[in-house]
Amino acid sequence: MSENFADRLLDAIAAKGSPVCVGLDPVFDRLPEELKNSGDELAAIREFCQGVLEAVAPHVPAVKPQSAYFEVYRGEGVKLYFDMVAHAKSLGLLVIGDVKRNDIGSTAAAYAKAHLSGDGAPDAITINAYLGADGIEPFLEVAAAEGKGAFALVRTSNPSAAATQDFADAAGKKFYQQMAEQIAELGNASELIGKSGYSSLGAVVGATYPAEAAQLRQVMSKQLFLVPGYGAQGGTAADCKASYKDDGTGAIVNASRSVIYAHNTDACAKMNWRDAIATAAKAFADDIAGAVLP
Amino acid sequence: MSENFADRLLDAIAAKGSPVCVGLDPVFDRLPEELKNSGDELAAIREFCQGVLEAVAPHVPAVKPQSAYFEVYRGEGVKLYFDMVAHAKSLGLLVIGDVKRNDIGSTAAAYAKAHLSGDGAPDAITINAYLGADGIEPFLEVAAAEGKGAFALVRTSNPSAAATQDFADAAGKKFYQQMAEQIAELGNASELIGKSGYSSLGAVVGATYPAEAAQLRQVMSKQLFLVPGYGAQGGTAADCKASYKDDGTGAIVNASRSVIYAHNTDACAKMNWRDAIATAAKAFADDIAGAVLP
Repeated sequence: MSENFADRLLDAIAAKGSPVCVGLDPVFDRLPEELKNSGDELAAIREFCQGVLEAVAPHVPAVKPQSAYFEVYRGEGVKLYFDMVAHAKSLGLLVIGDVKRNDIGSTAAAYAKAHLSGDGAPDAITINAYLGADGIEPFLEVAAAEGKGAFALVRTSNPSAAATQDFADAAGKKFYQQMAEQIAELGNASELIGKSGYSSLGAVVGATYPAEAAQLRQVMSKQLFLVPGYGAQGGTAADCKASYKDDGTGAIVNASRSVIYAHNTDACAKMNWRDAIATAAKAFADDIAGAVLP
Repeated sequence: MSENFADRLLDAIAAKGSPVCVGLDPVFDRLPEELKNSGDELAAIREFCQGVLEAVAPHVPAVKPQSAYFEVYRGEGVKLYFDMVAHAKSLGLLVIGDVKRNDIGSTAAAYAKAHLSGDGAPDAITINAYLGADGIEPFLEVAAAEGKGAFALVRTSNPSAAATQDFADAAGKKFYQQMAEQIAELGNASELIGKSGYSSLGAVVGATYPAEAAQLRQVMSKQLFLVPGYGAQGGTAADCKASYKDDGTGAIVNASRSVIYAHNTDACAKMNWRDAIATAAKAFADDIAGAVLP
């Protein structure tokens, strides 16, 4: 049996003293000018992604490629996505595929096979749990059998999340809290719990709602939180602290655009793009580590 | 400006007298024996999918390829998915890509570009609306500009849907009803409403909960319903009737496995697989049309 994903992620975080991951959201128009001149969009994105992975690998334990930006290029883009998963792994990075897949039964099992099963697939993926347990369990089967993980959307970081997710029952419990209870229950299965006490079923909890994150930290005591919303979306390191336990474990904060497009900022105008991204990745990791590690 | 998707779908349904679509869920192990012997899984799936599309085209106005079964084969599978979208369109079929994509802002826009924009993409896709309006509007922009459509998950057909989607507020309103109100509101934008009065933003409403479908039919008066759950999942034609208006418009019922794997049933054991699938598609269309058309 493969080692538990939660244990692997916590070990990787501890080894680098860096409880963060960098999102890989490649958009051709935002690439360094020297790459845009080649005329082949997909080749430019490949070179950019390789450069980002190599620049951030010394500073962070994990990366989160966003499937949407690869799917824009259809079959060739999906091939590149999996090539970048493999390249990240070869650099010793853990990979969280941001795919937000969701379906039921045999269809969910097909998504789990495609995106989570085998050495060529990410170590974990994001999933959307609106369909209930039928839509989550097929991913957990692969996670348990292969030492992989899943992060279910619970509380997202976007402005309109509240309109949907704050729907409340007569006792004042909100829908996202109900979702959190479901994730805690499903994730509590013994085959998912590692030596660390954490589950391979984690949760996505946005940085932009720290009071809610603190409450969710109680409800989902065995879940690792994947925390979007830092940086470009407005969340600060102090906001992110609510997603961690006092011992500094329990979460991994993601930043995407603020790191991988650092070459487009005035502060980095005189650096080459690889150095700009490495510098931004280290500053991001130090910012979060300084706020959350004991 | 391109013709409205809802109008296009209603015209196609009327032209064939067939308010249904067939789901394309290719699983290698279930293919006809003669195709499995080739040894090349993806080539076998290509031949099967082409055969299914050609067999069902005389009997149904639309098909719903399920992306998960293609994604199992990664880049090559995604290429095949889009090849089959093109082949379906060449046969005069409308295509609803069952991708259940979801994200926010520029990432949702990337999914919309990948899966909905341009002649090579489906006419409509399924989306998961848990992220709220930020996660829906990028798809609607493409829909309005290009005459495309989206079907948002509201009430799904699986057994555990209720555990999540029946979460109720103090007045007894359930979460899926709140979701329905949000879809009705977003779909009411004038640029989405066709000559028919229906919106290019539709809803997925399972056949297995007919009483709820009848209530949702009132709440979402301008939404076309995409109705899974007929056949293999237990829904009958009578169950599906609740999703249609009295004039026979307003919904399209999907069947996947009960049609495309008809060659594996005793009733069709002596037919070639193409004839078995054509026969099952016609029987399915006749069953629904008989129950719902005036």
